[in-house]
Amino acid sequence: MKSKITSALADFFFEYETPRQVLVRNRRVGVVCRLIQLGVLGYIIGWVFIYEKGYQSTDTAVSSVFTKMKGVGYTNVSGTERVWDVADYVFPPQVNASFVVMTNYIVTESQQMGKCPEVCAEALSPFPLPRKTLNVSVQGQMTGVCVNATKTCEVLAWCPVEDDHTIPEYVHSSWFSNCKLILAFHSSLTFSHTVHVMIQTTYRDIKCLHDPVTAPLCPIFKLGDIVRLSGFSFETIAKVGGAIGIVVDWTCNLDANVKHCKPQYNFHGLYGNPAEPDKAKASVGYNFRYAEHYMENKTQKRTLFKVFGIRLDIIVQSLARKFDIIPTLTAIGSGVGIFGVATVVCDLVLLYLLPKREFYKNMKFKYTDIQKPVSSNVKWTFKKKGKTGAQELLSRSEHQ
Amino acid sequence: MKSKITSALADFFFEYETPRQVLVRNRRVGVVCRLIQLGVLGYIIGWVFIYEKGYQSTDTAVSSVFTKMKGVGYTNVSGTERVWDVADYVFPPQVNASFVVMTNYIVTESQQMGKCPEVCAEALSPFPLPRKTLNVSVQGQMTGVCVNATKTCEVLAWCPVEDDHTIPEYVHSSWFSNCKLILAFHSSLTFSHTVHVMIQTTYRDIKCLHDPVTAPLCPIFKLGDIVRLSGFSFETIAKVGGAIGIVVDWTCNLDANVKHCKPQYNFHGLYGNPAEPDKAKASVGYNFRYAEHYMENKTQKRTLFKVFGIRLDIIVQSLARKFDIIPTLTAIGSGVGIFGVATVVCDLVLLYLLPKREFYKNMKFKYTDIQKPVSSNVKWTFKKKGKTGAQELLSRSEHQ
Amino acid sequence: MKSKITSALADFFFEYETPRQVLVRNRRVGVVCRLIQLGVLGYIIGWVFIYEKGYQSTDTAVSSVFTKMKGVGYTNVSGTERVWDVADYVFPPQVNASFVVMTNYIVTESQQMGKCPEVCAEALSPFPLPRKTLNVSVQGQMTGVCVNATKTCEVLAWCPVEDDHTIPEYVHSSWFSNCKLILAFHSSLTFSHTVHVMIQTTYRDIKCLHDPVTAPLCPIFKLGDIVRLSGFSFETIAKVGGAIGIVVDWTCNLDANVKHCKPQYNFHGLYGNPAEPDKAKASVGYNFRYAEHYMENKTQKRTLFKVFGIRLDIIVQSLARKFDIIPTLTAIGSGVGIFGVATVVCDLVLLYLLPKREFYKNMKFKYTDIQKPVSSNVKWTFKKKGKTGAQELLSRSEHQ
Repeated sequence: MKSKITSALADFFFEYETPRQVLVRNRRVGVVCRLIQLGVLGYIIGWVFIYEKGYQSTDTAVSSVFTKMKGVGYTNVSGTERVWDVADYVFPPQVNASFVVMTNYIVTESQQMGKCPEVCAEALSPFPLPRKTLNVSVQGQMTGVCVNATKTCEVLAWCPVEDDHTIPEYVHSSWFSNCKLILAFHSSLTFSHTVHVMIQTTYRDIKCLHDPVTAPLCPIFKLGDIVRLSGFSFETIAKVGGAIGIVVDWTCNLDANVKHCKPQYNFHGLYGNPAEPDKAKASVGYNFRYAEHYMENKTQKRTLFKVFGIRLDIIVQSLARKFDIIPTLTAIGSGVGIFGVATVVCDLVLLYLLPKREFYKNMKFKYTDIQKPVSSNVKWTFKKKGKTGAQELLSRSEHQ
Repeated sequence: MKSKITSALADFFFEYETPRQVLVRNRRVGVVCRLIQLGVLGYIIGWVFIYEKGYQSTDTAVSSVFTKMKGVGYTNVSGTERVWDVADYVFPPQVNASFVVMTNYIVTESQQMGKCPEVCAEALSPFPLPRKTLNVSVQGQMTGVCVNATKTCEVLAWCPVEDDHTIPEYVHSSWFSNCKLILAFHSSLTFSHTVHVMIQTTYRDIKCLHDPVTAPLCPIFKLGDIVRLSGFSFETIAKVGGAIGIVVDWTCNLDANVKHCKPQYNFHGLYGNPAEPDKAKASVGYNFRYAEHYMENKTQKRTLFKVFGIRLDIIVQSLARKFDIIPTLTAIGSGVGIFGVATVVCDLVLLYLLPKREFYKNMKFKYTDIQKPVSSNVKWTFKKKGKTGAQELLSRSEHQ
Repeated sequence: MKSKITSALADFFFEYETPRQVLVRNRRVGVVCRLIQLGVLGYIIGWVFIYEKGYQSTDTAVSSVFTKMKGVGYTNVSGTERVWDVADYVFPPQVNASFVVMTNYIVTESQQMGKCPEVCAEALSPFPLPRKTLNVSVQGQMTGVCVNATKTCEVLAWCPVEDDHTIPEYVHSSWFSNCKLILAFHSSLTFSHTVHVMIQTTYRDIKCLHDPVTAPLCPIFKLGDIVRLSGFSFETIAKVGGAIGIVVDWTCNLDANVKHCKPQYNFHGLYGNPAEPDKAKASVGYNFRYAEHYMENKTQKRTLFKVFGIRLDIIVQSLARKFDIIPTLTAIGSGVGIFGVATVVCDLVLLYLLPKREFYKNMKFKYTDIQKPVSSNVKWTFKKKGKTGAQELLSRSEHQ
């Protein structure tokens, strides 16, 4: 028994199967097939391997973004001069990947809890309102009282109620568009949880200013440039606010030197561009409210700000590529499979389209049994159950 | 030499190999094989291509989320009426993908730096404490003095020390659960760094209100609904706080019109659900502290708030699919490979299980050498070194 | 016609093709081939399936991170004792995945809008400056006036202007490095949009303290440990600020029990390590400014803080793996393709390197046409257009 296994193993190791093939010497089929095969080979080598870098696996990286705003804004509203520095116009102060640069605001000072009439764009037409409609308000809790002087409802709210029906004209000077945004990137690319690459933009070129053509790698941006490149009008966005996405595209080939791994910056208006007609419906600027609370004469008071501003979202898109044995061999393996498809296509041409198809069919196939002939054109003279001696001989000669 | 290469090239181009095959005409094997092959084909076409869309490559998109809270809260604590608007209850004011809606708080007013006794839930039992334990405190720097009146230690801290041992009962009226959260999504789907699709929810249906059944696409949510759908009890979460993840699932088929690309909203209680027994151990609500600083009589003072609230984390999950030649051909290529596996399975049946297996084995294989017979049942009468003329003829006939 | 199709279908179902093969009985080729084939098999089973888990598909998960700082800092600046609690030193108060622990600051009190001289590290050398250079300043709007006393320019700004040319020495005691950072993770792993797994760190081991060796899973960290593990010196980072990335690596095998899915914590200095010479150029710490506004005698005033601190970025990296039929069959299918490559390699050995290559070539290939012999060594005596009876017979016998 053991020797039987040993001999089977020896047989297995000393033998080797290779498929028998017909070498069809036909110019038409040959050329067609070779072209198909060369096409497949060209696709695998040229497209999958060289162009799409199919021998690499891809990974997205985790990253941190550090940003800093620099610059001073200056306003002159009816003679009152004021400057705005970073501590005044950036929200939140510890600037991170998403922050707002205030460009306009509505301030409502000395608000205190009390009862006062609502502020509406238009006085309510059926006045006084029926009591049942007096329950919901966006400005406070309705008391059920109607105020004749303003023809609006009285609410329990922070009084006086904010009047934001007219947005003040943009009063900041051109200073603001000159504010510089320093993006200091610190991307930590981790590839397949093993290769760890740290990339950071250096301040070596701190004196530079980003320009899409002349200085595409400089990480220092003028706010006005960002707005312009994202398709907004500075005057409009500064008045009503808007949001801009700064997409930082890091595509790194980790097989090459990491130094060649450079970011690309793209700017997209995300929200609130009234200049584009179809987006205008969707959005009317970007704003938020915040309040500063204080005590005055033992009463809690607050100053309410409705802030219009440019929201900057820094979105890092990273893609690292690295040689990997598995996609390489998968590409080769499936390429061999597609080669098989090419052979099938050629066989179809050979066996169904060529005039000599019957001849090739008989070359390619051997039949195990005597059945009806494949084609009625071909007459088999010796297809009988009882084989002649010659046939016997012949069929055996096959097995040698 | 040159002509030799040319002729070899011509040979190569005008030739074409196709494997020779045995066409086994056996009903059992035929049916089994065809079924296996049809199964493989069905798997490749039906499952890989149609169901799993294996002809597409996938990509995750980068996205920005814009949110806005609307609504006014109202409280009536022992006769003192108060309203809470967005500027009062949303942290941080420039609402982004993660923010907190304050629903309860503990306020400690007029704190100033000084020495005062700690506040403990229970008085320390061995009192006064030995000096060596007097070094660490969560409320301030221990001075080493023990205060008999409270039976606690004296600390250098913001005094009076906050007493948060009892969370006030939830005092907000049902107003709060009616607060509306407007989610304005602005997703920028970038596919393979080439196709750029901007998706934004429009305010066309600004009058709508999200409902999982009747209005699943409406991006306006009632806070009460969010809490309910995430499995929390509003009364509990409003008292002690908690965190809710709003998962926005964008699965886009970029081969179809982008208009069909709709988000799905799911709500998950992330943290702080005391109603679930096994989670109760893990979390006891969500809170944070912040302070408002001010000067009074040249002394720095602060008002400390311990804020309990509903933290909303908006998590965008995006998946874009698009036709890609590489996964398509990889699927086809590896499908051909699996076809090969099917053939191997059939061959095993044919060569090892069928009664006529020896016959098929001899049909399929040709042996290069005279070795021991594959099966002892078959007698080879003319396997001799010296070939007879007929054999010579036969073996040559093979090479034609 | 119909019966023809039926019979063709029947033929198709009851037939089955299997390639005819030569069983080469040659020890050298056999061993080489078997070894190549075993290598391919070993690669597919061992590397692709077992080591790289090629039967699984991977997915990244969405996650939320909850963090909480605990601890009280203590400073004693020239006799003035002060404690710092969480509400004082953490920005923003609702701590999320990225926050700053203040460790040092420059305060400029009682600023009000006005005109005052700039503060410069060195007095301007050509003084007074020519008027054309008097337009840009980082501290305010230049008025065009030169102040002789300070030899600097007068600016419209928040006066007095902040003087940040010398960073105060780090005055906090060792208290700070003992501050504990509690990371409460709540990861929501969603796999292929179908399997939803919630993972959260429990407070079961709330008494633990993270240590890379003895307690690698404990989610409670001492700030000093984080700084040390990220390669910073606490004294330096506390003085000028810096940023640390805490990478939380969740690699989950969803085929196993989710309980085995544990995070790994890694700490990286992201920014601002003056100790490393080549990074020193790139960064000089981490800081930001914020202001507290107040009214005094009807004048708007503010207190400006330049905050130096440790910015902690918690970066979650998640990877879930799960059995998936498609990568499994793709791996098998392309493995079969690579088997095909192995056969091609063996064939090259067989047909071009072995001494008996002509013999094997004739065993493997059948030629459809009478062309020039493949090798000049072999003489074909009966390759004539007109076939003899025996040849006719023989070629037909092939087709049986």
